[in-house]
Amino acid sequence: MTTGTVGVVGLGLIGGSVAAGLKRAGHPVWGFDTDDAAMREALRRGYLDQVVPRPSDLGACDVVVVAVPPTKTIEALARLEGAPTILTDCTSVKVPVTDWVRASVVDGVRTRFVGGHPMAGLENGGIAHARPDLFEGAPWILTPLETTDPRAVDAVAALVQSLGAHPVTMSPETHDAHVALLSHLPHVLAALLVTEARTLDDSSVGGGSWRDLTRVGGAEPELWTQILELNAREVLLRLDRALDRLLDFRNALGRNDFEAIRRWFVEAREAKESARCD
Amino acid sequence: MTTGTVGVVGLGLIGGSVAAGLKRAGHPVWGFDTDDAAMREALRRGYLDQVVPRPSDLGACDVVVVAVPPTKTIEALARLEGAPTILTDCTSVKVPVTDWVRASVVDGVRTRFVGGHPMAGLENGGIAHARPDLFEGAPWILTPLETTDPRAVDAVAALVQSLGAHPVTMSPETHDAHVALLSHLPHVLAALLVTEARTLDDSSVGGGSWRDLTRVGGAEPELWTQILELNAREVLLRLDRALDRLLDFRNALGRNDFEAIRRWFVEAREAKESARCD
Repeated sequence: MTTGTVGVVGLGLIGGSVAAGLKRAGHPVWGFDTDDAAMREALRRGYLDQVVPRPSDLGACDVVVVAVPPTKTIEALARLEGAPTILTDCTSVKVPVTDWVRASVVDGVRTRFVGGHPMAGLENGGIAHARPDLFEGAPWILTPLETTDPRAVDAVAALVQSLGAHPVTMSPETHDAHVALLSHLPHVLAALLVTEARTLDDSSVGGGSWRDLTRVGGAEPELWTQILELNAREVLLRLDRALDRLLDFRNALGRNDFEAIRRWFVEAREAKESARCD
Repeated sequence: MTTGTVGVVGLGLIGGSVAAGLKRAGHPVWGFDTDDAAMREALRRGYLDQVVPRPSDLGACDVVVVAVPPTKTIEALARLEGAPTILTDCTSVKVPVTDWVRASVVDGVRTRFVGGHPMAGLENGGIAHARPDLFEGAPWILTPLETTDPRAVDAVAALVQSLGAHPVTMSPETHDAHVALLSHLPHVLAALLVTEARTLDDSSVGGGSWRDLTRVGGAEPELWTQILELNAREVLLRLDRALDRLLDFRNALGRNDFEAIRRWFVEAREAKESARCD
């Protein structure tokens, strides 16, 4: 499978980088995007061997990677569910697409589909920002089902590794709970901080912590609205916990309980250090 | 003044890096720390020309940089207020030390003291992490008073520039309001995120946004408790605003008002883009 032809549906930042990295790793890569300009740019950059006129034409590939916006993923998969190809996607929320696969009337898709989510990205989307090394060193979560053919999982894991990422397997439900805290809440907080900075005379005096905490604060609004819609339940749980804990902190500070403030930072330092040792 | 002797009180991450950078820039540098091991290490690294037995001995220097923990700053300044040297500090909160200077019975200190705050740091403190380039490219806020001698401001600004930082002048009150949002709230949020990650099976699957948002999540508890104590009023204002806005967001998500969610991200993107153009 490591030298098989790979199809990529959606040639934005993620799909473009998948194509670029797989091409560099020696795979023949075919591509499709609803935007002709993105297809031309991917060809011009040498990320693709050919483009195809319809996404269903990619059904002839050994593996197809679907990298379209979250709310378009199921539609894109549906165009390929009858083909014999192994299918994977890159959507940031895994339960909705998995539910669709579980309910599919096409038996094959339940054995050939492997949900995926690369834990890498940039502040800006689009093929213009794509790069073959985007996924190097990044985790890439795979969410196979009970019904998934182990050979399909192995094939997708091999592709992920040829992009320099390391595959991590978990259930779709565990994935969505994890990214609610590890990605979705951080994006909400970063957006909050950059918006609040408008109240200052001069936000350019922020140091490294400000730069880091706000790097993703300008993330793409349509994409992030879709992500939060699809993962609303898990994000609400995380927001409620965050609001509770932040209110506790605020009240401790308000009543000059600096011992409670100190414990907050001690607990965080312990958590940070134990994460480092994991 | 650019070739004058500089004294440094406190040889931790900040003081050690100040000494290292000024020595590299050609200044004679004298140092003091209550910890003999820190003084020995600073000498061993070539950051100092000599150490002195008492902080008051640094009164013979042209400029003294006080870089001790926030709650020790006033005590350190008091040991030097009678000396003819220009004085600056590096404390993250400027109103308390400025109030002390304003109330000093020593006239000279009101003309010779220039409050300062380098907007740079690392997750870990101590001379072991000090480096001559720590401040390169970073803002360094100066908070002179109405009574401050302009020549003292110029001298401190020149030192800051010789460290590769760029001086920015604002009032102590404006400074404290700015850092409440630009530094103190981000540290509280980063600590919240790393602590919450303990509820996950595997927080190592976080991507770049997680790494950035939590980099300072393990910041030094004693230092940060002092900072929040000294700037409690401004941090409370920022926490209350953040709690209000986050609750609005939570409620919009809870009632499936995705138009409000989209507006949140649109507003953040606009704020991020306008900050980039400043």
